[in-house]
Amino acid sequence: MGKRTKPVSEYLNALSLFCLYCRVVISAKHNTGAGVVPGKINVHLVPHSHDDVGWLKTVDQYYVGSNRTIQVACVENVLDSVVMSLQKDPNRKFVFAEMAFFNRWWVEQNQETQAIVRKLVDAGQLEFINGGWCMHDEATTHYIDMIDQTTFGHLFIKKHFNKVPRAGWQIDPFGHSAVQAYLLGAELGFESLHFARIDYQDRDKRKVDKSLEVVWRGSKTFESSAQIFANAFPVHYSPPAGFHFEIDDTYDPIQDDPHLFDYYVKDRVEDFIAAAVAQANVTRTNHVMWTMGDDFQYQYAETWFKQMDKLIHHVNKDGRVNALYSTPSLYTDAKNAANQSWPLKTDDYFPYADRVNAYWTGYFSSRPAFKRYVRMLSGYYLTARQLEFLAGKKTTVSQIYDLGDALAIAQHHDAISGTAKQHTTNDYMKRLAIGASKAEAVISSSLANLASKNPGVHHSTPASVFSQCQLLNISYCPPTSDNNLQGKSLVLVVYNPLGWNRSDIIRIPVNDANLVVEDSFGNKVSVPPLGWTTYFISRALGKGKGRNGFVSSHSIIQKNKTIELGPGNLKMSFSSKSGKLERMYNSRTGVDIPIQQSYLWYGSSDESDQASGAYIFRPNGSSPSIVSRSVSYKVVQGPLVHEVHQNISSWIYQVTRLYIDKEHAEVEYTIGPIPTDDEVGKEVITQMTSNMVTNKEFYTDSNGRDFLKRVRGYREDWPLEVNQPVAGNYYPLNLGIYIKDKKSEFSVLVDRATGGASIRDGEVELMLHRRMLTEDGRGVGESLDEQVCIDDKCQGLTVRGNYYMGIHKLGDGSRWRRSTGQEVYSPLLLAFTHENIGNWKSSYLSKGTLMDPNYSLPPNVALITLEELDDGSVLLRLAHLYEQGEDAHYSSLAKVKLKRMFASKKIKELKEVSLSANQEKSNMKKKTWKVEGDKGQQPPPPLKGGPVNSFHLLVELGPMEIRTFLLKF
Amino acid sequence: MGKRTKPVSEYLNALSLFCLYCRVVISAKHNTGAGVVPGKINVHLVPHSHDDVGWLKTVDQYYVGSNRTIQVACVENVLDSVVMSLQKDPNRKFVFAEMAFFNRWWVEQNQETQAIVRKLVDAGQLEFINGGWCMHDEATTHYIDMIDQTTFGHLFIKKHFNKVPRAGWQIDPFGHSAVQAYLLGAELGFESLHFARIDYQDRDKRKVDKSLEVVWRGSKTFESSAQIFANAFPVHYSPPAGFHFEIDDTYDPIQDDPHLFDYYVKDRVEDFIAAAVAQANVTRTNHVMWTMGDDFQYQYAETWFKQMDKLIHHVNKDGRVNALYSTPSLYTDAKNAANQSWPLKTDDYFPYADRVNAYWTGYFSSRPAFKRYVRMLSGYYLTARQLEFLAGKKTTVSQIYDLGDALAIAQHHDAISGTAKQHTTNDYMKRLAIGASKAEAVISSSLANLASKNPGVHHSTPASVFSQCQLLNISYCPPTSDNNLQGKSLVLVVYNPLGWNRSDIIRIPVNDANLVVEDSFGNKVSVPPLGWTTYFISRALGKGKGRNGFVSSHSIIQKNKTIELGPGNLKMSFSSKSGKLERMYNSRTGVDIPIQQSYLWYGSSDESDQASGAYIFRPNGSSPSIVSRSVSYKVVQGPLVHEVHQNISSWIYQVTRLYIDKEHAEVEYTIGPIPTDDEVGKEVITQMTSNMVTNKEFYTDSNGRDFLKRVRGYREDWPLEVNQPVAGNYYPLNLGIYIKDKKSEFSVLVDRATGGASIRDGEVELMLHRRMLTEDGRGVGESLDEQVCIDDKCQGLTVRGNYYMGIHKLGDGSRWRRSTGQEVYSPLLLAFTHENIGNWKSSYLSKGTLMDPNYSLPPNVALITLEELDDGSVLLRLAHLYEQGEDAHYSSLAKVKLKRMFASKKIKELKEVSLSANQEKSNMKKKTWKVEGDKGQQPPPPLKGGPVNSFHLLVELGPMEIRTFLLKF
Repeated sequence: MGKRTKPVSEYLNALSLFCLYCRVVISAKHNTGAGVVPGKINVHLVPHSHDDVGWLKTVDQYYVGSNRTIQVACVENVLDSVVMSLQKDPNRKFVFAEMAFFNRWWVEQNQETQAIVRKLVDAGQLEFINGGWCMHDEATTHYIDMIDQTTFGHLFIKKHFNKVPRAGWQIDPFGHSAVQAYLLGAELGFESLHFARIDYQDRDKRKVDKSLEVVWRGSKTFESSAQIFANAFPVHYSPPAGFHFEIDDTYDPIQDDPHLFDYYVKDRVEDFIAAAVAQANVTRTNHVMWTMGDDFQYQYAETWFKQMDKLIHHVNKDGRVNALYSTPSLYTDAKNAANQSWPLKTDDYFPYADRVNAYWTGYFSSRPAFKRYVRMLSGYYLTARQLEFLAGKKTTVSQIYDLGDALAIAQHHDAISGTAKQHTTNDYMKRLAIGASKAEAVISSSLANLASKNPGVHHSTPASVFSQCQLLNISYCPPTSDNNLQGKSLVLVVYNPLGWNRSDIIRIPVNDANLVVEDSFGNKVSVPPLGWTTYFISRALGKGKGRNGFVSSHSIIQKNKTIELGPGNLKMSFSSKSGKLERMYNSRTGVDIPIQQSYLWYGSSDESDQASGAYIFRPNGSSPSIVSRSVSYKVVQGPLVHEVHQNISSWIYQVTRLYIDKEHAEVEYTIGPIPTDDEVGKEVITQMTSNMVTNKEFYTDSNGRDFLKRVRGYREDWPLEVNQPVAGNYYPLNLGIYIKDKKSEFSVLVDRATGGASIRDGEVELMLHRRMLTEDGRGVGESLDEQVCIDDKCQGLTVRGNYYMGIHKLGDGSRWRRSTGQEVYSPLLLAFTHENIGNWKSSYLSKGTLMDPNYSLPPNVALITLEELDDGSVLLRLAHLYEQGEDAHYSSLAKVKLKRMFASKKIKELKEVSLSANQEKSNMKKKTWKVEGDKGQQPPPPLKGGPVNSFHLLVELGPMEIRTFLLKF
Repeated sequence: MGKRTKPVSEYLNALSLFCLYCRVVISAKHNTGAGVVPGKINVHLVPHSHDDVGWLKTVDQYYVGSNRTIQVACVENVLDSVVMSLQKDPNRKFVFAEMAFFNRWWVEQNQETQAIVRKLVDAGQLEFINGGWCMHDEATTHYIDMIDQTTFGHLFIKKHFNKVPRAGWQIDPFGHSAVQAYLLGAELGFESLHFARIDYQDRDKRKVDKSLEVVWRGSKTFESSAQIFANAFPVHYSPPAGFHFEIDDTYDPIQDDPHLFDYYVKDRVEDFIAAAVAQANVTRTNHVMWTMGDDFQYQYAETWFKQMDKLIHHVNKDGRVNALYSTPSLYTDAKNAANQSWPLKTDDYFPYADRVNAYWTGYFSSRPAFKRYVRMLSGYYLTARQLEFLAGKKTTVSQIYDLGDALAIAQHHDAISGTAKQHTTNDYMKRLAIGASKAEAVISSSLANLASKNPGVHHSTPASVFSQCQLLNISYCPPTSDNNLQGKSLVLVVYNPLGWNRSDIIRIPVNDANLVVEDSFGNKVSVPPLGWTTYFISRALGKGKGRNGFVSSHSIIQKNKTIELGPGNLKMSFSSKSGKLERMYNSRTGVDIPIQQSYLWYGSSDESDQASGAYIFRPNGSSPSIVSRSVSYKVVQGPLVHEVHQNISSWIYQVTRLYIDKEHAEVEYTIGPIPTDDEVGKEVITQMTSNMVTNKEFYTDSNGRDFLKRVRGYREDWPLEVNQPVAGNYYPLNLGIYIKDKKSEFSVLVDRATGGASIRDGEVELMLHRRMLTEDGRGVGESLDEQVCIDDKCQGLTVRGNYYMGIHKLGDGSRWRRSTGQEVYSPLLLAFTHENIGNWKSSYLSKGTLMDPNYSLPPNVALITLEELDDGSVLLRLAHLYEQGEDAHYSSLAKVKLKRMFASKKIKELKEVSLSANQEKSNMKKKTWKVEGDKGQQPPPPLKGGPVNSFHLLVELGPMEIRTFLLKF
């Protein structure tokens, strides 16, 4: 009998409740068809599954559900079961974001399933939101990569479903960028942007004044013309507590079958209403959104839908609030219809802290080698597509696809961010390597075809002979190092993916002192826009004759006070005693700034309440330790280049280069293995200290595009409570950082995503490498301790990279930053082969461009996409490089003459489209939003280009404008 | 870069493997259509989910998936998702056993889904196996309950799907009974029986000689005519290690999409083949069965089917073995077709041990109060259905259905077994109480209608006034205790559900010394078969006149040596000094046996390697401790009854009753709360010790039907290694236990499922109550420490019950055991009301039967089912009570005259059907099996009744025969 606390009689009293198995078939149908009901709190249930495109497992492991000891997650289950569940009730809805996963699933489905899915999409039951290949990171991504990966997904959706995603869904990225809001948001055609992660102090304040939802104007240039409705969630992207219905969750299911024991409805309805009212209390209008999902949820979708069906049915029967299946788009429609005024938000949501001492600013720099590999291939991918188009695409399906796919995946917010597990990161690299290898083949054959005097005819030097030396950064390049030319020359074809003519100095490793370079002035090369030039390097006939460009004089170090270097206008002074930089000045402009430069490291906190890790930067004190106060060094001077080689310590080496016709210093650092014998993790920075009076202000870019003003220890949106004076002032850099005073600017450009800050006035620092022994407790479960192993012997990873320093008169820096930024992003492409010079010249043109030879793009416009799509149309994107007011001259309307740009081809048709090329520009509609404090009068519209006349084909671009076209030739 | 142990070049070498997203739609179709392939090892994949009808959660909690903190399991998910998955591939199959769950699901489905399911069943994709309401226990269940619960499910299947289950699927019960094999197996129409749990020593031996699969002849009476192919699994009812594909399992999925990384097929195929070969090595024929499931698996069925699809495809492509979707029926067909000789198995598979010191013999007695409640209601249910039919069923859907449902659920192998959690057990009790309450109403109205002189007319005493006093066992019966009769009499209607006339002595609690009973000889009542008699109890007019039957003389205890008691032939002697039994003898037969009786307890082992618990009986030593060597007692003697009240200890009280015309002793024990202050769990036994020379042998029943010989410390099938000399010799009792020597038999019958043994020659013991502080580690997670709480004050449960002792001449015991067994199972039903005698008699017949008043069933035949089904047909089951050779006279062909039995009704149609009434007897086919050692000659067929002539309607029954009919009146 046991613990029966009720007498039998009480059970019998319950009799009237039960009609056990009356064998009457009851209708289990729930009424789920609610729409918005005016006057009630409307709870928009948005079923979703947040599926990381790699994190603890690789993207394919997540898709197929392998590697289950790490995590059981299987996206195939999600999509299989969601499609089954959606068919069970036409009111059910589901939103899906990550097209890298959806594509994997889609190609495996048979035609019947595909037809079902198309119907679900057409009916609005399955809605693609965000719709990029992944949910990209917003701090460590370059805007070109963001556009590319989004286009990858949007064109997939367009092709298979003829749909245009309406909502941005960046629910997990760790902070949110201005470029995301206005460019990858408004300009993309999104009406709204939804996310979960904003600073905890910010969120607390926004809950109080109901400003979680805002109208976000992320662009100083475009202001209200590129605004977006932005919805920051009050808690996270999971449902309110207790409404989490994954198959293995411990929720209390609604039991509404009177034939069964434990009828359980009322409490659930009350819980629902309480949670709805609580959210309504921090939300404007009577519409609240519940994000009904979480990481890799809906493994068996029916568990969610079954509970939601019942909740909608019973809550609406109760009638106090109204629950409905919805999507972010429908929610936004309802918000918009409410005629409410919204708070205004400008700038961005960086940096992000989820609680005290937990600033997610470490990932700005985590895995610097990977970040560089992605950035390098990003430029390479751009070049490859250009060349494939210019040379004439050979196959229907591009062999560059894999690189695009790998790069798109790599933009994921746990990929490029450096916050995936090591094995997953390896997988990203492997994908990139495979993609790069395929792209290399395309580039080689395209280059050969392009330069060929008889395009399409096989030559004695087949295209596949071209090598491109992806590892030039470690001076590994077999074709140039090969001494055994057997009478042939080393043929070097240099391609310039920029729209401008370009001169540059290149370095290639050789094994012979007696080489001559033909058709070249020193080793400075000059290449036309979207064109190529060929150089021939041969064994010199006489001794000591060659290497005029390469020869450098090894200076004997003199123990006098200052060493001054610089073959061109920019000079740098180093202390001969300490070996360190003391000053930079420009002999042309007269700008002269005392600047010290040092390497330092922050010790990583290993405190149990919050350690430093892949995501979070938490130094164990506010002051970094200097690596060395004086350094050994050597100076190498040649006619074109001066170099200072500084041996900072046993694990940091730095080469500073000054070129004859560049007004910046190129700093090449080699850092690692970072020592951890002292059991202290280290986060290594380079710090440039000037005497500039900067008043806490500095400027950092947003995804390599706009520059935003940062004020140390200050936030525009709320009174900041400072608990991490260093980590809380770090910002993500993709292009660079600068400071200015009343006279000058000091700028630093980076070659990859990097964290940067100005922790004291006049100072700029970059975090270049991180190695730690602890983990920051955000799920990745590994300390960020990158290793390189050879034959099971492992040591910490060594990282090599460049940054670029420039000093300018106040107001002049942007030209250097914009132009140099493009050159860093799109370096010259070098292709090598061995051939007899005469043979080569008989078959190939040594120099050329498909543009009008007398034309180049205006200096304020960059060609950011030129790609032949699978259907033969050509995707063209042109980007104005300057913000409104950024440069006195260049912040103006620019004009591109397409006829001259594509002089060798004939444009038959031109169609301007949205940023992701999935809809015609003219069809794009924008919602209007009322903004608090907006006066009735409209601000003057931003300067933008007019429509493109299909006869003149002249493209105008206003400041910051990016225009996207589909061309037919 | 991190721990990249391979150089990039190796990744590049992998290029040829990958065609990343060639955007070619590939067919993901796997070839799953394999049938049996001769000459290969055929691996029959049998997808199943083992869904306990209550255990850690209640049946409804398991169904809806509530109470998830205990266990996430949700059977609704299983059925929902299996049906979805089966539709995806017509080759996929699934077997389902527990109709209590299926019924819950079925009534919730809409017509579309029901139609789909019917198609799946028709196509053989969804096959019902076992098909009872639950997977009943085999040790603690009565055969009538087993038949009833199986019929409940089989008729559901028949009605909704017109299907007849072909296979027994008792995969989890803790040992297997002879009655299961021959009666609930062969006689039911099953061709095979499948199970996982047999003794670990037995299994080891059977693996060596490939005798896991046998032809089991469970009946000594029927032998080969009721044999069944029985398949004991080599490990458990889960798949081989690594092939367990539940959504949260950590298996390695097959990755066979060449577009994705980590192609992973070969290893899985090798693993599969290795596991198949390993199993084939312990299996006869080249067919092996893999049980692809486990407890509450297939929460999302697709995870299983997806992997199985791929395994079948790739394993069969490999070709070394053949894998196919199958079911136990198809597997059995293949086994049968193989023309193999099989080992013979007789008797049963009790007791079960899953490892050393782990004998699952505790559950034979666990939760004795619950076991009694079930048994009591089992008889009550039988009676209720009789009365409903006899009085004329009032509603289309029986109001007794709930009791049938609750009883069916209670037969589950974690219900009646006493191995469910306490809250689940409470739920079983609640269901039973509700069911009993509804049945009580049906009985009351039926009785009133039956006895009415004007059936169907409303009387002044409405039927609902009848009370039935379910708690008479604790002397709680308000109508009999009510002194305020207001001039009315207490009307007592007694109904006899047996087919024989019957005299009995009844006890009812009263509050008045001056009562007279009219129409009665003392309080001995006599009732016709399937009939009733009415008694009137009134306040006596004169003092001291009444209570002649009830009056008893309280003897003064004399301190002489022996007290001899017994108003009839059976006498018992008690020591006046110790108060204990010394001897039993029968004055009629001369049987005279010295017998001592004591209460003792085994201390429950709490050893960490294996403690005693709800399942497992493990004493902490081989000798039990005696509760008391001498007892205080009193003797109560009346003309009809002699009673000895023995106060054994503060927590054990015993009353022994000897009736004037019964030749047995009725022992009523009251045990509890079992003290555990000494921190020792106790398992309490009553032990009867005689001087009989029993040569280690004793006899116990199989599910209340056949008696099986047991030999202490010995197993027929293998050389037993004894590690638990007590626990390993316990057997389940449902009817009773007896021992015999060359002259006499000593028998003990029980009133519920009870563990019993004969641990020393001449001794019989019953385990009557158990209370322990530890848990035996088999999943239930609670110690079996039943408590009764009133106002939060709890104490150990007190249990009251009866057992019956008889002594007989050798060969004469069975008549008493069989007849008394029926009386214990089907006690007289008492119904009370208050009415003026005259009024009553004017409206009601005081006595009657619907049978021919001069007819009764033969003494060797019992009516075990008489029930009007929903379609108006009447289910009749008659059971011969004796085994072949059991009784010199009664083990013969018996004849039942249906015309006289149903004298008041006219039988229009009679159809003999299978035991579960789901197919016509004449249509049943049996497979033939070759048995090792069988000589060519057939043994003489067992004595069985011939076909029933529809004119004479005479039913013959051979020994142990049960015949089932559907009648139309």
